[in-house]
Amino acid sequence: MSKSIFYHAGCPVCVSAEEDIINLIGASKVEVVHLGEKKTRIPEAEKAGVKSVPALVTPNGNALHINFGASIEDIK
Amino acid sequence: MSKSIFYHAGCPVCVSAEEDIINLIGASKVEVVHLGEKKTRIPEAEKAGVKSVPALVTPNGNALHINFGASIEDIK
Repeated sequence: MSKSIFYHAGCPVCVSAEEDIINLIGASKVEVVHLGEKKTRIPEAEKAGVKSVPALVTPNGNALHINFGASIEDIK
Repeated sequence: MSKSIFYHAGCPVCVSAEEDIINLIGASKVEVVHLGEKKTRIPEAEKAGVKSVPALVTPNGNALHINFGASIEDIK
């Protein structure tokens, strides 16, 4: 099984959700990407359907928006 | 570790998120509760901070709202 990708932007909501997701799924199964620091990966996240962070893109390509920290537009 | 609880209301967004969450976390680690059919459990969900479904309440008590299907108020 390939990894999920957790996109965030360092916001408090993001950090809390990241801890929860890693506890639930396991750190080895999640790649964590800080879109504020890696803006080159924003297009990839948008293509996967990510509209806001924190969000988890599953191995089958579904975007799960988890609570709400910031919109992708605000990170750009 | 105790189980997470996945609250939903049978909506399409809920069903899709449920499949994703169970694939990610494992069915044995998630209790699935249909709040439309078990309205007696709405107060428990609200107490955990659930404002809309689908939502996952983690073993440590955090409410993670996953995408948006329906608000708790609409289910009542």
